[in-house]
Amino acid sequence: MTELLGPEELEAALRAIGAERYHNRHPFHALLHGGKLNRGQVQAWALNRYFYQSIIPMKDAAILSRATDRDFRRAWRQRIVDHDGDEAGEGGIERWLGLTDALGLPRDYVVSGAGLLPGTRFAVEAYLHFVCERSLLEAVASSLTEMFAPTIITERVAGMLANYDFVDKKALGYFDKRLFQAPRDANFAIEYVKREARLPHQQQAVLRALEFKCDVLWAQLDALHHAYVDPGHVPPGAFRPAA
Amino acid sequence: MTELLGPEELEAALRAIGAERYHNRHPFHALLHGGKLNRGQVQAWALNRYFYQSIIPMKDAAILSRATDRDFRRAWRQRIVDHDGDEAGEGGIERWLGLTDALGLPRDYVVSGAGLLPGTRFAVEAYLHFVCERSLLEAVASSLTEMFAPTIITERVAGMLANYDFVDKKALGYFDKRLFQAPRDANFAIEYVKREARLPHQQQAVLRALEFKCDVLWAQLDALHHAYVDPGHVPPGAFRPAA
Repeated sequence: MTELLGPEELEAALRAIGAERYHNRHPFHALLHGGKLNRGQVQAWALNRYFYQSIIPMKDAAILSRATDRDFRRAWRQRIVDHDGDEAGEGGIERWLGLTDALGLPRDYVVSGAGLLPGTRFAVEAYLHFVCERSLLEAVASSLTEMFAPTIITERVAGMLANYDFVDKKALGYFDKRLFQAPRDANFAIEYVKREARLPHQQQAVLRALEFKCDVLWAQLDALHHAYVDPGHVPPGAFRPAA
Repeated sequence: MTELLGPEELEAALRAIGAERYHNRHPFHALLHGGKLNRGQVQAWALNRYFYQSIIPMKDAAILSRATDRDFRRAWRQRIVDHDGDEAGEGGIERWLGLTDALGLPRDYVVSGAGLLPGTRFAVEAYLHFVCERSLLEAVASSLTEMFAPTIITERVAGMLANYDFVDKKALGYFDKRLFQAPRDANFAIEYVKREARLPHQQQAVLRALEFKCDVLWAQLDALHHAYVDPGHVPPGAFRPAA
């Protein structure tokens, strides 16, 4: 029989999952930030991660589409605004394309998804399906990886600026905004989850949802690591960096 | 402007995709059949592949549920019978569990999916979603990897029997049946696709569906290779062979 956790116990259990499973613990993360990758490998990371960025507003719209509470919807819709911007040329997805531009990847190619790793596509689409198919509570809980984002962003920006001459502060502009957006969004979501997960099975579903989302992020780095880190096993049809 | 292909040209284009992308070309395949894996690595393969087997009748039911033609349904339903059997203890899924039994994996653990690689889960669920969401023609075309199955099955059984003392002919009983089921099913599907893909955009959709399915199989071996082949990066929560 699973016990009911107090709200702070639930938060502690969520943080324990992050401490074990968040992708800041993945070896590819250390390589990326430690300056151990070449330009082609960083291109592969930015190209694949673009696909993840590109579905975030669809994921948030799926959450909005099932939320009956206006206060909830007013707060959550800001995520869509942040990613898509108020007009063309603005927003988080556009800033990510600024990074792929800076890395010399043709924008049409990035947006087409032609060179994506299948492992990226399957993991990212699994996230979208999860949010569409599970309960609203689980969908919100799956966003809680943002609780752990500020640390990884700080490490990533400092490490990449120090180690790579092919990226500069402007190219990493995406992360500046995320440094305040992610904690704001995570605070809202953790308070929601602590308030709404009132039965043991709901709390267990919340914990499993965060594990699932950690798996989504981890599997993306596994796919990159396997394809692009020595010896490198690029699957048929996927992006191959220029020699 | 894409040209209309004749039925035999379409079949040749499909076979060319298989020649380049079918998972018999994956390095993990060579390791498995060449006797280069230890028992724990073969366990990991059988455990993860079980999840793929387990969704096949659901995938075929999704196809049946959208087929308006009775002749088509009568033929296609045999696939569900083959996998599920006529009673408990029969069918292809049961024979796969015979293999995981022989490898010493507890049946409850295999069926629970607890130790699955997230990459396996995401790839397999992508297949199920594809079949549910795309056209019937694309769903049927995605089954066409069975055109290439007899070769890989023959290699697999011969190689595994010759190289591993922990599997015998009985443990590999699943593959005996597939040697005649797969060509029968593939013949039906290729004739359907050649007859029904009458416009260039339909033929292109058929070709992309087969590429997608090859990606699904390839990504499963990528995930296994990354997790379990030297140096081995087992993701958090996934199966770890006994030392």
